[in-house]
Amino acid sequence: MRDVAIIGVGANPKWGELWGRSLRDIFVEAALAAMDDAGVDRIDSMYVGCMSSGLFAGQEHIGSLLADYLGQRHLPATRIETACASGGVAVKMAALEVASGHADVVLAGGVEKMTDVGGADATYALGTAADAEYECYHGATFPGLYAMIARAHMDRYGTTAEMLAQVAVKNHDNGALNPMAQYPFKITAERVLNSIMIADPLHILDCSPITDGAAAAVLCPLETAKKLTKKQPVKVAGFGQATDAIQLAQREDMTWLESTAQAAARAYEMAGVEAKDIDLFEVHDCFTIAELVVMESLGLVGKGEGGKATLEGRTARDGDIPVNASGGLKSKGHPVGATGVAQVMEVVKQLRGEAGDRQIKDAKRGLTQNMGGSGGSSVVHILEVA
Amino acid sequence: MRDVAIIGVGANPKWGELWGRSLRDIFVEAALAAMDDAGVDRIDSMYVGCMSSGLFAGQEHIGSLLADYLGQRHLPATRIETACASGGVAVKMAALEVASGHADVVLAGGVEKMTDVGGADATYALGTAADAEYECYHGATFPGLYAMIARAHMDRYGTTAEMLAQVAVKNHDNGALNPMAQYPFKITAERVLNSIMIADPLHILDCSPITDGAAAAVLCPLETAKKLTKKQPVKVAGFGQATDAIQLAQREDMTWLESTAQAAARAYEMAGVEAKDIDLFEVHDCFTIAELVVMESLGLVGKGEGGKATLEGRTARDGDIPVNASGGLKSKGHPVGATGVAQVMEVVKQLRGEAGDRQIKDAKRGLTQNMGGSGGSSVVHILEVA
Repeated sequence: MRDVAIIGVGANPKWGELWGRSLRDIFVEAALAAMDDAGVDRIDSMYVGCMSSGLFAGQEHIGSLLADYLGQRHLPATRIETACASGGVAVKMAALEVASGHADVVLAGGVEKMTDVGGADATYALGTAADAEYECYHGATFPGLYAMIARAHMDRYGTTAEMLAQVAVKNHDNGALNPMAQYPFKITAERVLNSIMIADPLHILDCSPITDGAAAAVLCPLETAKKLTKKQPVKVAGFGQATDAIQLAQREDMTWLESTAQAAARAYEMAGVEAKDIDLFEVHDCFTIAELVVMESLGLVGKGEGGKATLEGRTARDGDIPVNASGGLKSKGHPVGATGVAQVMEVVKQLRGEAGDRQIKDAKRGLTQNMGGSGGSSVVHILEVA
Repeated sequence: MRDVAIIGVGANPKWGELWGRSLRDIFVEAALAAMDDAGVDRIDSMYVGCMSSGLFAGQEHIGSLLADYLGQRHLPATRIETACASGGVAVKMAALEVASGHADVVLAGGVEKMTDVGGADATYALGTAADAEYECYHGATFPGLYAMIARAHMDRYGTTAEMLAQVAVKNHDNGALNPMAQYPFKITAERVLNSIMIADPLHILDCSPITDGAAAAVLCPLETAKKLTKKQPVKVAGFGQATDAIQLAQREDMTWLESTAQAAARAYEMAGVEAKDIDLFEVHDCFTIAELVVMESLGLVGKGEGGKATLEGRTARDGDIPVNASGGLKSKGHPVGATGVAQVMEVVKQLRGEAGDRQIKDAKRGLTQNMGGSGGSSVVHILEVA
């Protein structure tokens, strides 16, 4: 397989409730930004990560739709769906196609237009990432499923509501420095703990929001990257994908994400590195508890130690394991199909030294972890300065 | 890229209205049949083509769900969606992953569970393969869109309702010999022409049905195929995928499928063959008119000559260009996400000489053409005896 580089990234200038714009509008804006960043005006193939354009927007078949609206009619264009990991897997598929030699310049995008449906419908649509027959039919929603993970983590490891709140506080500290963030303001632990309870122990400020947004990346062979772009190419050093039981109740351990652990193991092996060799991490904090179990499953800290590490400031931008310098899903927003691509975008910007006030010093290698459902799918990328 | 072979295929014994069985049941049955046919008990990676499990079954994230129910928990598993071309693109993605060297044994499946929703909802769900904002909102459905293609073809080329009916008659002649067919009986042109009108000039017997079904194929490197299976391996000699405007009104020519023409051109080039070198064709006859425009866009006959060729018997099993020996979507059924995989299954069985009473004599090379929407996506595979 050929070595692969990312040569361009882009997204909407600001994520949020983009009432005046449609799914096709926001995707095209992000894709053109990525192509402009890469300095390319044609692509050979395209993947679009999107969880549920059918339920959210009444539109399937978005590969064809979006290739056309991007001005790339006739391009091979494929939608990738692995629930909230769709964007990350779209990047993996693009990397795989470039690595295979079948295409040279491939765009990986992600999009979700979530705010045009009513609140109840959005919860229903998101719920389809869980097991419809054994979870949703019985009333489980994602706040409820992650609340059960949180309760189990508290019971087993002594994790506290204050530790969970600190994840949100830290991510909002970072997101306040990110112009694209949906909620770019700081919050306090007190505010999190006094916000309304959604599913005990998760308050509303433990939850990521409903967001409209898109992001995109342009990939090409590493050996031709420097001919195509004037910017610093970023090498896709490793990637890995894995699944687990979609049902939380079927997992061997509710406080451990085996899909993340296996995806990371594959990515670490491919890149020839370990967690300790990585300078920054963008992970899937759909709920505050998720960031803790992801950190543990990636091997950044030991089992049960995520909360303590967060309280100690180890995951802050100036800590030894900076997590979600972008603001994460919590502050930046979580348009589910776009999230995995935006994680890659953040790491690329950090590795290029373009992350502005939230820049991690001397960042040479970064990791993204994107997951679907309560951990039924995970995908991990390791990116490094080429 | 490595050469790729298909070493196993499988499907449900019979497609149709499978009221007593769920999406996961029917997929697992097909996947296990394919793995059994291949003689493998483990796979490295899985792709599932499915158009709209969200709208049809209230379930997204089926990669995770189906890998688990298949007994392959932790496998990388990805859903592919390109509307009714989802199954064919899943096969392409599996071929690409094997070709790249990233995985050795990859399963490509397709599934759609369509009959658990009401009739109005199924039409809505299928409609999301068209442009929601510019077609569906204004009342267009797929029978209406294909009726417009048919009317344009009649006006321009003199195609008649009798020619369209003969497509259905021929495909039912073939499907009557296929044990898995949803409607395995012969029909007459008179019966087609006297059946109720759905969208002038398309009668109900010009339309493929709503179907529950799944199909799967197992792919591996050609060089290891003979070690893994005792059956005749089938080489994936070429594949191609392309898009077109999702909106029919935006096409340059309503009677021509540019996505099919470009997908075929890529596949022909990769395989180093032309249409005349191919012994049988499985194509996307979602409506009778579709088979004619596909034949023309693949270059089997000249523009406007599809109807005449059909009336002359050239596309029958004993004709010079046998089309849809399986019975096609019309008789075999059309569980949209599964269709492209089932086309590959039919060609594999024909090339192995396992097609029973519908066997095409001396078949050495076959082509599949699977498309989404009114031609917004197409994918073509060329398979040959290894």
